[in-house]
Amino acid sequence: MQKTRMEAFSDGVLAIIITIMVLELKVPHGEELTALRPLVPAFLSYVLSFVYLGIYWNNHHHLLQAAGHVNGKVLWANLHLLFWLSLLPFVTGWMGENHFASLPSAMYGGVLLMAAVGYWVLARSLVAAEGEKSLLHKAVGKDYKGAISVLVYAVAIPLAFVRPWISQLIFVAVALAWLVPDRRIERLM
Amino acid sequence: MQKTRMEAFSDGVLAIIITIMVLELKVPHGEELTALRPLVPAFLSYVLSFVYLGIYWNNHHHLLQAAGHVNGKVLWANLHLLFWLSLLPFVTGWMGENHFASLPSAMYGGVLLMAAVGYWVLARSLVAAEGEKSLLHKAVGKDYKGAISVLVYAVAIPLAFVRPWISQLIFVAVALAWLVPDRRIERLM
Amino acid sequence: MQKTRMEAFSDGVLAIIITIMVLELKVPHGEELTALRPLVPAFLSYVLSFVYLGIYWNNHHHLLQAAGHVNGKVLWANLHLLFWLSLLPFVTGWMGENHFASLPSAMYGGVLLMAAVGYWVLARSLVAAEGEKSLLHKAVGKDYKGAISVLVYAVAIPLAFVRPWISQLIFVAVALAWLVPDRRIERLM
Amino acid sequence: MQKTRMEAFSDGVLAIIITIMVLELKVPHGEELTALRPLVPAFLSYVLSFVYLGIYWNNHHHLLQAAGHVNGKVLWANLHLLFWLSLLPFVTGWMGENHFASLPSAMYGGVLLMAAVGYWVLARSLVAAEGEKSLLHKAVGKDYKGAISVLVYAVAIPLAFVRPWISQLIFVAVALAWLVPDRRIERLM
Repeated sequence: MQKTRMEAFSDGVLAIIITIMVLELKVPHGEELTALRPLVPAFLSYVLSFVYLGIYWNNHHHLLQAAGHVNGKVLWANLHLLFWLSLLPFVTGWMGENHFASLPSAMYGGVLLMAAVGYWVLARSLVAAEGEKSLLHKAVGKDYKGAISVLVYAVAIPLAFVRPWISQLIFVAVALAWLVPDRRIERLM
Repeated sequence: MQKTRMEAFSDGVLAIIITIMVLELKVPHGEELTALRPLVPAFLSYVLSFVYLGIYWNNHHHLLQAAGHVNGKVLWANLHLLFWLSLLPFVTGWMGENHFASLPSAMYGGVLLMAAVGYWVLARSLVAAEGEKSLLHKAVGKDYKGAISVLVYAVAIPLAFVRPWISQLIFVAVALAWLVPDRRIERLM
Repeated sequence: MQKTRMEAFSDGVLAIIITIMVLELKVPHGEELTALRPLVPAFLSYVLSFVYLGIYWNNHHHLLQAAGHVNGKVLWANLHLLFWLSLLPFVTGWMGENHFASLPSAMYGGVLLMAAVGYWVLARSLVAAEGEKSLLHKAVGKDYKGAISVLVYAVAIPLAFVRPWISQLIFVAVALAWLVPDRRIERLM
Repeated sequence: MQKTRMEAFSDGVLAIIITIMVLELKVPHGEELTALRPLVPAFLSYVLSFVYLGIYWNNHHHLLQAAGHVNGKVLWANLHLLFWLSLLPFVTGWMGENHFASLPSAMYGGVLLMAAVGYWVLARSLVAAEGEKSLLHKAVGKDYKGAISVLVYAVAIPLAFVRPWISQLIFVAVALAWLVPDRRIERLM
């Protein structure tokens, strides 16, 4: 089974998710600078989620570049990842509208956690489809970075109820750590 | 006539349908857990529709994988299927907002029924374009599973007026039965 | 210059236009059949516009199938067509919400007219890029059907101020006349 | 690394941006001509932004046509450009709703400025990936047109606080100057 349609479908879904988030930035009624003030938290959370979706798109691109073909399990693992990412506009809007309050920040972290798990499952299912001796297996390896990210999100979620800004800082830090695309795959090819 | 553009267009429409459904999850105004409570039915119906669209995308993928080329009738059969699927966000939102009431649940079943018919018509039109001796014809065969699904939906619709939760249960059961992608095609290729 | 990206971009825009129209079908608050009643005109105009967009997508597909390559003028002729089609959700919603009143129906006809002109310009620019002796030129030929459609729309627009239902009937009749994809191109290939 | 998925993803995002802008044209409640009057500024700003996005799509198409392959830096430069373009629907709606007032016009210019910078960065990163002796380097060259555009936008922004219509005129003039696709690349290929 070819991977092109799975790539095209994922590109479509990710492109739409990244773009509909901007619809949460509701056009204000006034024309002065003060009319934009209430949008600042929504804008900042938009930037953060845009970067996260960019990271996911880039790594998805790298991962499938290394993969040869896909099967039914891979298709569902991919849909599972897209499901969690599709919830990002909702939690982004909720977090932005409530000025980074505790529960919305924890929920945002929860969606990031589940998306990270979804990516890990997708990578595993691709390796399983390719076989243990494949180039992909070498390239993905143990995926310590992905596992650590999951752990860090798991720590950030309860911290949102202590000090939400600590969680925010963690989300930004993890994003920065991932901004570098997955060199392991580029190196091997 | 090549099938690539029909695949690309279908991917686009399905990707958008799956993503705009999340817009029905309106960002709540409060920041507490109680603010999320009214969204639970909308969320559950979103999950169900996401799974259904995933199933359609997967089976569409498998079906066209086996097909060689398309003609004008196939293009319209495909648009007919996409039309019914495009109504899914509307009935999903209506069912979710009314907490799985009778009429919205019946309408939801009606759209699922028509989409199943649409898929069946698409499969027939592809077989007709390929000829009775084609690989696709062997792969699709009698399509008992599709025919039974249509029957089950037809039963679930009137049942929604007796006990809506029975219809919901049926919709979930059919989805689970379809979660396995169409092995017949994979087996033959 | 290759035509693949122009096809992909057009597929994307048409897929989004066809799908966001469904957002005009606002989820009603009641759960009874009467809650759906006010949506009937919006639904009917959605069906009509869905069919029109399906026709445009099909013919666009056929047209570019016959074309070899594109240039800067073709890209802009294509964007011009997409511009008019992008106004279809707006006039569809306006016509539906006002129960097929005179002015919205005339505006709907106006957008159909401009889209037909846009398609004609695109076909001409493709023929110009290919040369007068190309397969495309033979296939597209004089395009009487396109020219007659433009004339018919031009008649339907003023008629909307006399009896709007006459215009509606004309829009439906033209759609039916176009439902058959452009056989001229299929025949020659 | 192949460029096809980056093209597909960019096509998707640009197609969605160009289409969701039309959602800012809210369907009016009345059916008379006067009901459309308040939409005129929103419509005009939609046309301007549609043309700008058409220009970006065309030039993006030309630029990547000349490019051979992409790397991680190019992917991020591309996402950076798409980020600024994704803000276009917001500033378009804000400018349209406030009838081309000073601050919204300045913000519109600011987004155009950043998008122009983003395009310039993308072109540089592609040249860096291809090497100084590449066809792309010759084709893109010094990119005086891009540099001048950035300067012109930088002048138009403060002018919006003096006379907003001067800025509008400048935005229209720059768009017209760019309507001609990048001949340098077409000439060299």
